[in-house]
Amino acid sequence: MSGGKRNADRTREKILKAAISEFAAHGFNGARVERIRTRARANTRMIYHYFGDKRRLYVAVLEHVIGELRHEELQLEVDHVDPVAGLMQLFEFVHGHFGTHPELIPLLNGENLLGGRFLRSSTKTPIITSPLMALMERLLKRGEAEGLIRPGIDPLHLYVVMVALSYFHRSNAHTLSTLFRTDLLASAWQSQHKKVAVEMLGRYLAGDLGARHGK
Amino acid sequence: MSGGKRNADRTREKILKAAISEFAAHGFNGARVERIRTRARANTRMIYHYFGDKRRLYVAVLEHVIGELRHEELQLEVDHVDPVAGLMQLFEFVHGHFGTHPELIPLLNGENLLGGRFLRSSTKTPIITSPLMALMERLLKRGEAEGLIRPGIDPLHLYVVMVALSYFHRSNAHTLSTLFRTDLLASAWQSQHKKVAVEMLGRYLAGDLGARHGK
Repeated sequence: MSGGKRNADRTREKILKAAISEFAAHGFNGARVERIRTRARANTRMIYHYFGDKRRLYVAVLEHVIGELRHEELQLEVDHVDPVAGLMQLFEFVHGHFGTHPELIPLLNGENLLGGRFLRSSTKTPIITSPLMALMERLLKRGEAEGLIRPGIDPLHLYVVMVALSYFHRSNAHTLSTLFRTDLLASAWQSQHKKVAVEMLGRYLAGDLGARHGK
Repeated sequence: MSGGKRNADRTREKILKAAISEFAAHGFNGARVERIRTRARANTRMIYHYFGDKRRLYVAVLEHVIGELRHEELQLEVDHVDPVAGLMQLFEFVHGHFGTHPELIPLLNGENLLGGRFLRSSTKTPIITSPLMALMERLLKRGEAEGLIRPGIDPLHLYVVMVALSYFHRSNAHTLSTLFRTDLLASAWQSQHKKVAVEMLGRYLAGDLGARHGK
């Protein structure tokens, strides 16, 4: 790779990082390209060169952060693992990813408050998402065949529950903490909540099978 | 009640309704008192008379919408109902309330994006919230004593999961629908998701007890 190309990549990445912070903190409408420019030590020409206008920079941010989550999820072991363990590993990936990427929740919340209209204009994100359901389907089917997972579980419903249980106790922690006079963001509370989620998912997958097998 | 008092109540309520819509649509920062005034056919003096400044009007909105949810939850049957049925009824209330009050999700999301700092200044909301944990605790204890609910379930963790399962598939439906090329807001998808949630909660409450009792 030439030095010019390396520098260009580094500039692009600096702009993207600054944009992630800015859009996560202020949403699309509140975000200011000037602040992104200052934080990335870039000029407006560079931003427009690499990304286009504010709107396209924002779509690139959404594509990037969702792509990172998908990348982590697709590390999922499918072929050489117990199917229940595999699906619980997926939950670990999702749960862990939201923990290490705190910018993801405000970005997704903000985009949903806008009706999801910017993400809809992305041509990349549906493509990077499509393999996930196929992987989950394979684990679910194998689990059914081996008598470890009860039949009829839908991968998308299961995935949405997994994200809900990785997301809501973080996204809404501020209001819940005030209302219930308990610090939901305390690490003890958060790790206890993860245990509740793991137990719930495990029981949902096994159904009565686990109890019958004496688990 | 005098006609003057009735008119005052009506004016106050019109302002509150207009403010709920405005803050739900635009968040605290994006909301404009002029638009609330126009929609409520009120003048600025009235708004300041009944609520004070924009900040206090916003806090009154949060208190009102959270108070409505609490009011519905506290209809919970505690004394003359099967404890599992009682807790599932609570889930029905929460799930139903978010369905019939679509303004609640953007208001809570917006407040959490602001770090929950306005709700913290409310003196009302912790008071209206406090009876709920006590009601849940009574159902959980009675369920344990009757051998219908497994021991050790924490009411706040359970409640947060109930809200997550009422909330996330709606709050994040726009982005998820795009990513997974499925209309999550279609009523068939939503009602199927509720079934998944009900089954998950039921299995979590009963633990192995339900299976052992042949349920």
